[in-house]
Amino acid sequence: MNLYGGQVNKLIEELESLPGIGSKSAQRLAFHLIGLPEEKVNRIANSMIEARKNVRYCSCCCTLTDKEICPVCANKSRDQGTIMVVESPRDLAAYEKTGRYEGVYHVLHGAISPMMGIGPGDIKLKELITRLEGDVNEVIIATNSSLEGETTAMYISKLIKPTGIKVSRIASGVPVGGDLEYIDEVTLFRALEGRVVL
Amino acid sequence: MNLYGGQVNKLIEELESLPGIGSKSAQRLAFHLIGLPEEKVNRIANSMIEARKNVRYCSCCCTLTDKEICPVCANKSRDQGTIMVVESPRDLAAYEKTGRYEGVYHVLHGAISPMMGIGPGDIKLKELITRLEGDVNEVIIATNSSLEGETTAMYISKLIKPTGIKVSRIASGVPVGGDLEYIDEVTLFRALEGRVVL
Repeated sequence: MNLYGGQVNKLIEELESLPGIGSKSAQRLAFHLIGLPEEKVNRIANSMIEARKNVRYCSCCCTLTDKEICPVCANKSRDQGTIMVVESPRDLAAYEKTGRYEGVYHVLHGAISPMMGIGPGDIKLKELITRLEGDVNEVIIATNSSLEGETTAMYISKLIKPTGIKVSRIASGVPVGGDLEYIDEVTLFRALEGRVVL
Repeated sequence: MNLYGGQVNKLIEELESLPGIGSKSAQRLAFHLIGLPEEKVNRIANSMIEARKNVRYCSCCCTLTDKEICPVCANKSRDQGTIMVVESPRDLAAYEKTGRYEGVYHVLHGAISPMMGIGPGDIKLKELITRLEGDVNEVIIATNSSLEGETTAMYISKLIKPTGIKVSRIASGVPVGGDLEYIDEVTLFRALEGRVVL
């Protein structure tokens, strides 16, 4: 259907190709963009182009950054000997929001998934192993609590244990504020297993 | 929090400013964009810039288009004497999807809302009145069934009636597939009032 002429349709199509944006949201966004001041649209568009052009993996922890080394790795006041392994930069952001973690990170950019054909060579594991040659006290595995995340955690712990470096896994249990009756059996069992003495 | 360096944060901020995109979706979109091939990102960005630069109001019906006259108004096989008045280009798109309307449109870009301080002079009403000087048989008012939409419909019908041109309003009633027990009283009453003899 060509209702608006080619350029509006083209914009709607491009927006629809983004994750989480369906045809209605794409229309809504397109009309919003067309209604914005021209310099604001140019700013949004240029921030995309610039970010895509300049953002790369941190040469240390593999998170995304526009510098050679990301701000966390570059921060000398963080404990560079404690590495938390996460699946994605978003997970890193989630832990940074707690404001309570003093160590550094390693971003795998995925998890091992035999089902999807993703093996250990397809995530940033080699880079993690290289880092372990340095001065590392502990590796905290904070992959997701999904099948893939657990598989990855297991794989990494087996890989690291022989080196003598301490390996830990973030606790699994009832989320804070969670109502027991709505929590699945596996989580409840894990919470029981992982109980701590008061 | 500066986790990724300035350019990623800037992109996330720009995306967050768009309607319907919260901070989590903005992060997700930003990482998706950074992971796309560079030419694809440039294409999305340029489609925004181009659409914003070239899209304007159709000089006839006021919908958005990148031409002087929109495809519907330019289509000689459509009934140019029947004008359906809608609030937004999205409403026009919704009616075009039915594939059953043969006339043309007029897009108001809003509705009269004394509460929000939007008067008749703030929507494309003057442009509609100018069009009525031509050869028009019927004006079908298809503003939303909200307070603002109804107010606007009333206002337009009062304005047009003296000219002798037929004015109609799209039917209000039970939506197709709607379950009577979940439909509000006003709609049920309207459906009763608007009953048709079988």
